[in-house]
Amino acid sequence: MKFKAEVKVMLKPSVLDPQGAALERALRSMGRRNVDSVRVGKLIELVLEADGAAAAEALAAAWADELLANPVMEKYSCVVAPL
Amino acid sequence: MKFKAEVKVMLKPSVLDPQGAALERALRSMGRRNVDSVRVGKLIELVLEADGAAAAEALAAAWADELLANPVMEKYSCVVAPL
Repeated sequence: MKFKAEVKVMLKPSVLDPQGAALERALRSMGRRNVDSVRVGKLIELVLEADGAAAAEALAAAWADELLANPVMEKYSCVVAPL
Repeated sequence: MKFKAEVKVMLKPSVLDPQGAALERALRSMGRRNVDSVRVGKLIELVLEADGAAAAEALAAAWADELLANPVMEKYSCVVAPL
């Protein structure tokens, strides 16, 4: 069975995010004063083959640990849905 | 009132995604054969000030149009939640 997994990878809150800071400055300089903070992360959409939703989520989390996220600087979360 | 908006920015399906292709190849070369496809996008987390959820979503979408996404190559979606 095929599943679609969304892995959200964000820098840990303690890690400086220059890309987010640049976007925040850009929004402010465009006069958008109601912006408070901006953080930029990665969204990785996987299509994968697994026996069930729990197995698919475990696979996505394992791959995030192994390859998709850097556990020193980043945290991730996975959401899985059948395709 | 403060809201947290998540703007997901993905390349349009017709646009080649070399970063996703590289991750897919890497997973396969690590022996993870049940991966089918990988696409990589951006996840932008904004904290913003707005009068209500609808206004916050409209703001996030306007900013995505103006700055956060490239409408030629990317599509985006916004999800807003009160903070």
